[in-house]
Amino acid sequence: MDRRSFIKKAGLAGAGAAAASTLAAPAIAQGGKELVIVSTWPRDFPGLGTSAQRLAASITELSEGRLNTQYFAAGERVGAFDVFDEVASGNSQAYIGADYYWVGKHPSFAYFTSVPFGMTTPEWNAWLKFGGGMDLWDELSGSFGLKAVPCGSTGTQAGGWFNKEINSPDDLKGLKMRIPGLGGTVLSKLGASTVSLPGGQIYENLVSGAIEATEWVGPWNDYFMKFYEAAKYYYTGGMHEPGGGLAFGMNASWWGSLTDWEKAVVTAACHKEHADSHEEAMANNGAYLKKLVNEHGVQIRAFSDDVWDAFGDASAEVFEETRQHSPLAAKIDDAFQASLRDIGGFMSKFEVTFTNQRNRVLGL
Amino acid sequence: MDRRSFIKKAGLAGAGAAAASTLAAPAIAQGGKELVIVSTWPRDFPGLGTSAQRLAASITELSEGRLNTQYFAAGERVGAFDVFDEVASGNSQAYIGADYYWVGKHPSFAYFTSVPFGMTTPEWNAWLKFGGGMDLWDELSGSFGLKAVPCGSTGTQAGGWFNKEINSPDDLKGLKMRIPGLGGTVLSKLGASTVSLPGGQIYENLVSGAIEATEWVGPWNDYFMKFYEAAKYYYTGGMHEPGGGLAFGMNASWWGSLTDWEKAVVTAACHKEHADSHEEAMANNGAYLKKLVNEHGVQIRAFSDDVWDAFGDASAEVFEETRQHSPLAAKIDDAFQASLRDIGGFMSKFEVTFTNQRNRVLGL
Repeated sequence: MDRRSFIKKAGLAGAGAAAASTLAAPAIAQGGKELVIVSTWPRDFPGLGTSAQRLAASITELSEGRLNTQYFAAGERVGAFDVFDEVASGNSQAYIGADYYWVGKHPSFAYFTSVPFGMTTPEWNAWLKFGGGMDLWDELSGSFGLKAVPCGSTGTQAGGWFNKEINSPDDLKGLKMRIPGLGGTVLSKLGASTVSLPGGQIYENLVSGAIEATEWVGPWNDYFMKFYEAAKYYYTGGMHEPGGGLAFGMNASWWGSLTDWEKAVVTAACHKEHADSHEEAMANNGAYLKKLVNEHGVQIRAFSDDVWDAFGDASAEVFEETRQHSPLAAKIDDAFQASLRDIGGFMSKFEVTFTNQRNRVLGL
Repeated sequence: MDRRSFIKKAGLAGAGAAAASTLAAPAIAQGGKELVIVSTWPRDFPGLGTSAQRLAASITELSEGRLNTQYFAAGERVGAFDVFDEVASGNSQAYIGADYYWVGKHPSFAYFTSVPFGMTTPEWNAWLKFGGGMDLWDELSGSFGLKAVPCGSTGTQAGGWFNKEINSPDDLKGLKMRIPGLGGTVLSKLGASTVSLPGGQIYENLVSGAIEATEWVGPWNDYFMKFYEAAKYYYTGGMHEPGGGLAFGMNASWWGSLTDWEKAVVTAACHKEHADSHEEAMANNGAYLKKLVNEHGVQIRAFSDDVWDAFGDASAEVFEETRQHSPLAAKIDDAFQASLRDIGGFMSKFEVTFTNQRNRVLGL
């Protein structure tokens, strides 16, 4: 797909497509409860956008239209970064997005998407659902009048696209890079000049030289962004967004008004889509990584141990600063770091031990 | 929990508890379609059994009783290994179990639970749902009048419990070990004397010396089995069951009689439980691994590269033999091995690269 027509089709340019944006509701839905969903993703955006649209359709289907969803992509009803206030105010019932966009409201929202040196998606899911994490998310979101349920994941994101090789921490000094969130703060501590740009503005800034590097998601998503035209070194698994997930954030009063059955339907639809979106990305990423190399001459690299050590030192500083925000911020960091060591320590001895040996023996 | 009272409570001893075994159905369920579920797991068995019971309750809840589930644990209606014929014949509507129990019907059923050097759970999910795997499972199950949906996962299983250290492939020669499935065939090729015993008979055989080693699941499940009383060396992630999942296997004619909405409800409930059971195990395994070490002096070990190499050579032979069974067996192996290399190759560069570096930097 051509990038410009893709971006245009994705609706980044404006809100004119709003009238055509609602999902067809089944006949039974006429008497259903209205569930207006606003999203941080452009319409039909591969992975993120298509997953959000699938979730909206799934809630309508599973509830037989008794929850009557209307889905608005970014810009179709409100701007991507306005969905938090839109839902907290009760003007819409739910948003779909990445909760680390709200670190300006509270820095601990980062833990409920992904943080540097954090958990992979299976680890984060285990912490959330069975290790106490969901209670902390509820406490944080609840203080803003919201109730979140996990509803999507990209898996471990790529380290990013660079127009030169990164062989030592010194190569990061002065580097102009697009990298948002706590990962951006880590890079800043290492001397990089970081910016946060929405997806639709990255390519032009990279081509113009305004930035020299960017991270986005992973091979499947990144392929369509054509970053390889200006930055040919693609770094594999990065430190900044190792896993975690996206949020279906509902107005808490609206959530409280649902019946137990309606809550079960919303939760089941979200948890199913949470798994599906992660697995869809895992199924597509391998093929698209090959296409990047074979069709576009992309050079695959991994950061050296020295670079990872520098990332680790800087991340420790970032967490220490985040903890200083408030007692809740410290409580969430305590819980997250303890579960990371518990669950991650186990995974390293079982799944990771197996995977490393399998890959060595089979030459993967 | 004491092992004997646990085993007794788990209902391994008999079918006397059948009358009390059905789930309480909501009032609305009186007119619902009957959905009798028979299981390969003992009642209240931690992880496997509790997950199956949760799934049965979830289908009733999500369908508002229009699918009226009645759940029978192993031995309460039919024996664990009789559930396949029970459902294929239409006498019950569905079973919950591990499809590799049916390798006597067709060896390719192993791929739809877990095979040596195979996929981790996220990889297997990606292959099934988005890489064509489900079509092959449908073809295989359909030839026996069944339709399966994934509904549970233990994650990467432990290499097993041994009463001596395994330092080289020679240490496996003559070893009497309980290990079923294709993993058992691999061990046999390396000179071990393998047996397949149901869960309730492993402990007494290990204590009596009839067997010298056994695999079961992972720290959470294994803790309650008290194998450490007779075998103190516990090997981490093994080659034989790296991931994959369990099956909700339905009578195909019954599945075909469901409405689209009923199919969506069953699928959502199964996919949700598939994720939940995996994540619950990941959340519990770390704590139980520590308890095994700290409370019972268990010695944690990992197999050496030499042992893994021998496992790899023997596994290649096992797959070659499995392929000889039939054109369908070869087709399934072709698809599985190609997706393993595609998805696993990607994961090695992203999630595994991150996890190895994180664990190195944080000392996990």
